[in-house]
Amino acid sequence: MTDKIARIGVVLAGCGVYDGAEIHEAVCTLLAISKAGAEALCFAPDMPQAHVVNHLTGAEMAETRNVLVEAARVARGKIQPLSAFDAGAVDALIFPGGFGAAKNLCDFAFKGADCSVNPDVAAAVAAMRAAGKPIGALCIAPAILVKLLGGEGVELTIGDEADTAAALEALGAKHRVTVAGEVVVDQRLKIATSPCYMLDSSLAQIAEGAENTVKALIALMD
Amino acid sequence: MTDKIARIGVVLAGCGVYDGAEIHEAVCTLLAISKAGAEALCFAPDMPQAHVVNHLTGAEMAETRNVLVEAARVARGKIQPLSAFDAGAVDALIFPGGFGAAKNLCDFAFKGADCSVNPDVAAAVAAMRAAGKPIGALCIAPAILVKLLGGEGVELTIGDEADTAAALEALGAKHRVTVAGEVVVDQRLKIATSPCYMLDSSLAQIAEGAENTVKALIALMD
Repeated sequence: MTDKIARIGVVLAGCGVYDGAEIHEAVCTLLAISKAGAEALCFAPDMPQAHVVNHLTGAEMAETRNVLVEAARVARGKIQPLSAFDAGAVDALIFPGGFGAAKNLCDFAFKGADCSVNPDVAAAVAAMRAAGKPIGALCIAPAILVKLLGGEGVELTIGDEADTAAALEALGAKHRVTVAGEVVVDQRLKIATSPCYMLDSSLAQIAEGAENTVKALIALMD
Repeated sequence: MTDKIARIGVVLAGCGVYDGAEIHEAVCTLLAISKAGAEALCFAPDMPQAHVVNHLTGAEMAETRNVLVEAARVARGKIQPLSAFDAGAVDALIFPGGFGAAKNLCDFAFKGADCSVNPDVAAAVAAMRAAGKPIGALCIAPAILVKLLGGEGVELTIGDEADTAAALEALGAKHRVTVAGEVVVDQRLKIATSPCYMLDSSLAQIAEGAENTVKALIALMD
């Protein structure tokens, strides 16, 4: 990976921790990619958000927003619908966290172990796996991968929350307890995960976790 | 400033480059504050946005959003109305950029040199000046300060865009052309500014500009 610029797909679940992509994790992921001299290609599913949350009060708002349109705020407009994702055009794929990863990209936040995954997300992960290319996930986003790869015994982390870890282990994952900034790498399946805001962390620690995960993805590239 | 944790107020103009706070600049500012071991206190005016822009298409959307409620997405809910700002509770104040700084915090984007500034913003800047505490501004946000401090001949930068610089100089500012990551410090008025996305920059350069500006603010603290 020294002869060309690495391209890393970033899947955004909206714009805001309670109903979309966690903004700090998303920006720190894009920053880590920029600092590594790689190129970020942003994607989001073109679909309504599960709901809209007032981030000042925590109350649900009586309106609808589109995941792709809101994610475009994080991406400054440079974003494509996830249905257009081509595993051949990227060297790795990463999912920042936030409730949107567990409400829009899959419904783990509502259904736990009985969750299902958005078809575009499932297709992107399957295409990356088929191509033998690495996938990263931050915070609660590993839940998406567990539903899809749990049967293969994927090894990952969502930090130290026992109930969530138990739900993921019920789906076949091997969960590892981690501290802020730490990354679990499943070398066999080429999956890198870090807890980020699943732990009570400073923003500097979130940036460290995102940077370590991006470095792990680059190390996993052929 | 070595005996206690510095507190830096961050004024957010919404959530999204085209109608609110530029998200990368806002997060990089919060990250720079976290990395410096300081504490960020977020504020935003409780008022309707000037308008709502679809960040995927660039078109105006037929809906209304509140600046404080949307800014809460960037701040993960930890934010106060700018009307509650107390200059005695912070050691510095900073304005990240984005069109929201020139559409919501003031109306420079619509009226240029004839712009007016939101009263809560004007009061916060006046209180910081009266207390002799430093103020930072990124990207287009220096336009706010020019309207308020132009009569004092404030020295600052918005990068290298000649027309915008001329509009600011018409209001009494001394504009300095800068490159990515560079900070202009007006030692007399304790104002630190950096161009960020006013220049065609990488996200790594935005983070550098925000970090350099936060370091300049800390150096300006008594």
